[in-house]
Amino acid sequence: MSDKAIQDSYPENLAHCYGCGRLNAQGHHVRTFWDGDETVSRFTPQPWHIAVPGFVYGGLIASLVDCHSTGSAAMAAYRAAGRAPGSEPPLRFVTGSLHVDYLKPTPLGGELTLRGRIKEIKGRKIVIESTVYADGVATARGEVVALQMPDNFGQS
Amino acid sequence: MSDKAIQDSYPENLAHCYGCGRLNAQGHHVRTFWDGDETVSRFTPQPWHIAVPGFVYGGLIASLVDCHSTGSAAMAAYRAAGRAPGSEPPLRFVTGSLHVDYLKPTPLGGELTLRGRIKEIKGRKIVIESTVYADGVATARGEVVALQMPDNFGQS
Repeated sequence: MSDKAIQDSYPENLAHCYGCGRLNAQGHHVRTFWDGDETVSRFTPQPWHIAVPGFVYGGLIASLVDCHSTGSAAMAAYRAAGRAPGSEPPLRFVTGSLHVDYLKPTPLGGELTLRGRIKEIKGRKIVIESTVYADGVATARGEVVALQMPDNFGQS
Repeated sequence: MSDKAIQDSYPENLAHCYGCGRLNAQGHHVRTFWDGDETVSRFTPQPWHIAVPGFVYGGLIASLVDCHSTGSAAMAAYRAAGRAPGSEPPLRFVTGSLHVDYLKPTPLGGELTLRGRIKEIKGRKIVIESTVYADGVATARGEVVALQMPDNFGQS
């Protein structure tokens, strides 16, 4: 696996995301890599990221699925275009829709692994399936419809 | 509207949720009330809860939809049973699945309002539709399938 995550290549003005932006000091800093044809992120929840004591908060899981999946979409778009990640113009994706099925409670206390599969690439839309594993057991499965960011997104 | 939120009535061992637990010092403290037949929560994101500068992080929106909806499910269950919120035995719900459609970017800088509608009550399953409004404009719409918590949930 490369030691450079897709999020390391986001341009500075798009690197402030609370979930995955390297420039957000308070954020989660999700980092996503290729592993063959799958994408992988790893994340260790904090002790306060709980639903009930001992189990990870579902909203955090949704956040991880979100950023892992939009990162995976960017990776898939660069690969499909035969371009190096981060090359200009940037290919950056936002979330059109997010779906998470909670398969079982996710135990707190160790590193979680997210593995993504590129389900569909169609124009500016990419569909990613992302599964969350705790100690090798799948505890949640998500699907994100990621949309290539409009050029004027974030110009408030 | 009552000045007591459903989360104020959760038993102590179920009041640690990062999204809505009153006993989680680091959490978001989502609080949910009846407004007629709809449920309402209000939340002001922090400056670091951004996707790109000026706009709210989608993972936070998913978290708000999650806790607003499971709280709404508990409220609906108590109302359907003709019981006062918080009366024993507790009716507390976990998220079976979460879906969010992001309708447009959610501007950062003010209070968000979530409004919930009880779509279906069937046995231990309650379906809630929750819409997120920023300054009166709907920016995201979510659907949560909430499941009544098993009696042994969280006994790790």
